[in-house]
Amino acid sequence: MKKSFLICTGCGRTWPVTRAFPRCDFCAEPLEVRGVVPGRIRGSRFPHRTLLERYRDFFPFRTLNGELSLGEGFTPLVRSARLAGATGLGDLFFKNETVNPTWSFKDRGTVSGVQHALCLGYDRIGTVSSGNMAASVAAYGARAGLKTFVLVSAALPAEKIAPIAIHGPVLIRVDGDYGELYFRSIEIGKRRGIYFINSDVPFRVEGSKTIAFEICEQLRFRVPDWVVVPVSAGGNLRGIIKGFEEFRHAGLIAAMPRFAAVQAAGCAPVYRAFREGSERVQRVERPETLAHAIENPFPPSGNEVLRKIRAMGGVVAAVSDEEMIAAQRELAGEGILAQPEGAAPIAAVRSLAEEGRITRGETVVCIVTGGGLKYTAAFDFHRFRVAGCTLSTLEDHILSEDPGGGG
Amino acid sequence: MKKSFLICTGCGRTWPVTRAFPRCDFCAEPLEVRGVVPGRIRGSRFPHRTLLERYRDFFPFRTLNGELSLGEGFTPLVRSARLAGATGLGDLFFKNETVNPTWSFKDRGTVSGVQHALCLGYDRIGTVSSGNMAASVAAYGARAGLKTFVLVSAALPAEKIAPIAIHGPVLIRVDGDYGELYFRSIEIGKRRGIYFINSDVPFRVEGSKTIAFEICEQLRFRVPDWVVVPVSAGGNLRGIIKGFEEFRHAGLIAAMPRFAAVQAAGCAPVYRAFREGSERVQRVERPETLAHAIENPFPPSGNEVLRKIRAMGGVVAAVSDEEMIAAQRELAGEGILAQPEGAAPIAAVRSLAEEGRITRGETVVCIVTGGGLKYTAAFDFHRFRVAGCTLSTLEDHILSEDPGGGG
Repeated sequence: MKKSFLICTGCGRTWPVTRAFPRCDFCAEPLEVRGVVPGRIRGSRFPHRTLLERYRDFFPFRTLNGELSLGEGFTPLVRSARLAGATGLGDLFFKNETVNPTWSFKDRGTVSGVQHALCLGYDRIGTVSSGNMAASVAAYGARAGLKTFVLVSAALPAEKIAPIAIHGPVLIRVDGDYGELYFRSIEIGKRRGIYFINSDVPFRVEGSKTIAFEICEQLRFRVPDWVVVPVSAGGNLRGIIKGFEEFRHAGLIAAMPRFAAVQAAGCAPVYRAFREGSERVQRVERPETLAHAIENPFPPSGNEVLRKIRAMGGVVAAVSDEEMIAAQRELAGEGILAQPEGAAPIAAVRSLAEEGRITRGETVVCIVTGGGLKYTAAFDFHRFRVAGCTLSTLEDHILSEDPGGGG
Repeated sequence: MKKSFLICTGCGRTWPVTRAFPRCDFCAEPLEVRGVVPGRIRGSRFPHRTLLERYRDFFPFRTLNGELSLGEGFTPLVRSARLAGATGLGDLFFKNETVNPTWSFKDRGTVSGVQHALCLGYDRIGTVSSGNMAASVAAYGARAGLKTFVLVSAALPAEKIAPIAIHGPVLIRVDGDYGELYFRSIEIGKRRGIYFINSDVPFRVEGSKTIAFEICEQLRFRVPDWVVVPVSAGGNLRGIIKGFEEFRHAGLIAAMPRFAAVQAAGCAPVYRAFREGSERVQRVERPETLAHAIENPFPPSGNEVLRKIRAMGGVVAAVSDEEMIAAQRELAGEGILAQPEGAAPIAAVRSLAEEGRITRGETVVCIVTGGGLKYTAAFDFHRFRVAGCTLSTLEDHILSEDPGGGG
């Protein structure tokens, strides 16, 4: 590891970068990597560099395990003139994280977390997740040849198990409070030599910052007015903010965007604390949303997200399940099939534009966090029209569907 | 369009490049684009170029519609030293097409086909497919704002409908012979002004050639010994062969790889014709395989694939469903979750190595055509081990799973 350290986002105490335990021993707030002297962006991506190689000057890793990469990152930034027009925006982009190796943004944090575990000499890793993160850690754990523990909720439906289990981890259903499992796993890991790459651990946050790096590069270092991010544990948004900050400190961009955190109305602890002016998030007792990927009732980085959003003039929004489903359809109309959670930002953009928080002519980047095949139950909330005919009636049928068309 | 033409792969007759009808009027064999004067590779991909822009010197398009791209292509070439060692190969790579915008290789041919339709002034497109191609054409049709007809088999399960329908095409279930539907749709399209971007139309083949271009770049223009490709209609393999040929003609590579076409044993018309020494594929009457994405009983490019494979010293292999499922598991152990079809090449590599067709020390590239979440029914063929415990017994449980571990 290069010279660097971890700092507590709550009390500012510092800790060695070789520490795998992700929270402050004193105030229990999450830690963050600091002290890497920034350098330059290395080479072009295609075909010769991995994500960690391209941005290695912004990571504390001295050496990289070449065969760890599955080709994560370098995701498309898809412009939508049509939806920008419909929303009165100057420009609108979708950062499509659904084309990562396991089809969500999680792979960025996973590759960074596993790289840290390898640098520290761990041969066992783990995670607590019931969805995108579990699949991602199982995949990269397999790739790295590490013994990999994936702890899932006892309530997880069988259909969610297969895409995790197929990578061959030690998969354990744990009966008990899911929020407590986060902390318990990290304690057990500390005692038993297992590096738990949970939702908001410092090196997962490091991975997420590459989303910001790429957006900067893709917009040719023109800074967008807003970046809109679905928030569950809070680690991804922390990483994206950190990425923009690091590029600003490195002189690569001249200003910071503002950030909008988006939560599901049925599980919105950060939104509630933001509205109430509270400094600390309170646990949501009965989360109720279809957006399970952003359903963390007590986000471990919630307080830090609040601090950051407030300090930077950002905003927290909440969107209903119905709005997410409508947004999923809208995004599919642009060619991108997202999880409902991944479409939440475009729903939030609409309401923030109506409230006048996002104003006419501004440039907005929405983070589309995961792919729509991850959660097929959401399709049940849509109505689709499917016609039927035979080979011999096909041409008539096409004509009836398209009375104005050709011929 | 630039100066170029279409040529019949069967009889050699030529046709104008502005033609949307993909087959020869005389011998009914598929057409292919020719006559583009090759140039150079343009710029780096990240962050400023799309696939068609990077390789525009190899396409006949004079202008490109900038907002058509969803960021297709530029997929990872993932090396596996572990599986190379286990198979006795010199080097083994997986071209991971599962990270395309709709999670299969189809997006390459779709973007090229839609671009051709736009160049020709069509405002209506269509396809005949029940899987990857349907989702891809629906997505790009939506993106381009075109009226899009997707014709699927009447037998298609409801769960397969949603990921297509959500993009908003005119979706029609057609009762009748699926092979005939391919030809019928093209005739109707010709009469009614609908450009049908079916499996092996010339501009879909053009899109597929970018797989070869990328492999060449990713291997720094060192040519692999073998490229192994799952074959259904035959268009993707035709495109990949054409891509290597064009780079050789452009002086970018010095030799050609050999090609192995892989079919499912339960639906292997090309394999059968190859073994029997026949020049023409015969229809498979009762296809029986779980690998529906390579289940074309009468491949429209089958004869052309036979001609090419024979002329180039290649081989056709067939793998059983069991072998594909085992290969899917093996590939997941490298971190890549493929459809069973997408894992078929690694199964074929094993048997070809045992037969001595692929020999010790050779370099092999397997094309992983589509993602494992596309076909979740395949998970039922796997056995997964999942343990259960409570929060209070978790640590003991982890110890029992990992008796040699930490502590």
